[in-house]
Amino acid sequence: MTRAKTDKKTEAASCHPTHTDTHLCMPEDARKRANRRLAIARGHLESIQRMLEDPNVYCMDVLRQIKAVQGALQGAAGVVLRGHLEAHVATASERGDAEELIEELLEAMKLTQ
Amino acid sequence: MTRAKTDKKTEAASCHPTHTDTHLCMPEDARKRANRRLAIARGHLESIQRMLEDPNVYCMDVLRQIKAVQGALQGAAGVVLRGHLEAHVATASERGDAEELIEELLEAMKLTQ
Amino acid sequence: MTRAKTDKKTEAASCHPTHTDTHLCMPEDARKRANRRLAIARGHLESIQRMLEDPNVYCMDVLRQIKAVQGALQGAAGVVLRGHLEAHVATASERGDAEELIEELLEAMKLTQ
Amino acid sequence: MTRAKTDKKTEAASCHPTHTDTHLCMPEDARKRANRRLAIARGHLESIQRMLEDPNVYCMDVLRQIKAVQGALQGAAGVVLRGHLEAHVATASERGDAEELIEELLEAMKLTQ
Repeated sequence: MTRAKTDKKTEAASCHPTHTDTHLCMPEDARKRANRRLAIARGHLESIQRMLEDPNVYCMDVLRQIKAVQGALQGAAGVVLRGHLEAHVATASERGDAEELIEELLEAMKLTQ
Repeated sequence: MTRAKTDKKTEAASCHPTHTDTHLCMPEDARKRANRRLAIARGHLESIQRMLEDPNVYCMDVLRQIKAVQGALQGAAGVVLRGHLEAHVATASERGDAEELIEELLEAMKLTQ
Repeated sequence: MTRAKTDKKTEAASCHPTHTDTHLCMPEDARKRANRRLAIARGHLESIQRMLEDPNVYCMDVLRQIKAVQGALQGAAGVVLRGHLEAHVATASERGDAEELIEELLEAMKLTQ
Repeated sequence: MTRAKTDKKTEAASCHPTHTDTHLCMPEDARKRANRRLAIARGHLESIQRMLEDPNVYCMDVLRQIKAVQGALQGAAGVVLRGHLEAHVATASERGDAEELIEELLEAMKLTQ
């Protein structure tokens, strides 16, 4: 654990200069998985754009495809959220930044009111 | 306008061969506006993918960007829906296919239960 | 048709005094079905409140129940929307108020952007 | 603090008998705040039901009110989620049940895919 921290020091040091005291980076696995999902969503959007070039396209077929991409993005958001909960929120009590992290999380998810 | 209509006649006839009796095509203006919005969303996704290549990226920054794209897609869905309501649903009583159209619309919006 | 209109005149006259020229009322069937669904949702909320009086209740059990009520309200919204589309939007072209109705509908559904 | 823990022992022991090894109860403050919000939402639903008894009610007025209640329930869900994150997820690494808790959380929020 300590070794890993030391190994990553130079990288981590530049990680979140504006995020005071903490250097929380997205876990590599989550980054790769989210990236793959966004690549698929992007390809899907491109195919909807091609559909929209056809003057015979039917509105509801387009709407259904847009809904499918929205579902895919929800999945990508889930991947990011899982990585954040595992790597940062579950360990927040040990680091002492739980309140700050949770506030930010609820805001990003538009769940504050 | 009349010319355009004449020009499109053969095309329109083949518009929705499986959609019995009706040849409902997405209005050109809605197609163009939706296409533009999807192009922007796609560019946005590309920029999030670039963010994800940075090992120092912060989970919540990625989540916020994904939420923004979801909002943009909601806007694109609104454009498609508006075109459909104006061109097809508002005239459905005259054509006599209101029930079928509304069922399909509620299903595409996942509002049936 | 004309007779029905005459019969309803007194009631319709007071229907939407601020909604210029049109007197659009919610269809009775939709009113009754929506009311039933809201009654069920209300009972469900009451049972969640009882759950919340138990100091041993588990957060995720409460969250799942709230999500279930949100789904039920989505169903009630679908009932209202269906009635509106059938009774008012599908006939809008005949009445000539399509633009106004569609604008209002997209706004109520938070789909304008 | 220690006393409070001792006082609650018997109660906590019966807290989540099916939730192996952990006895996670919803924080009292979150329970009370969520309860208050649900009470308000319930009163709001009751007033929509009264609206629906008026044959002159307008569909879009009902839809807007249902959307408002959905927003209120989203707020109540946020209260529950905040309590869970603070009391249980932020301390999960110390207890060693992070994986289980996070899986359950993402499922309850319908964010797994």
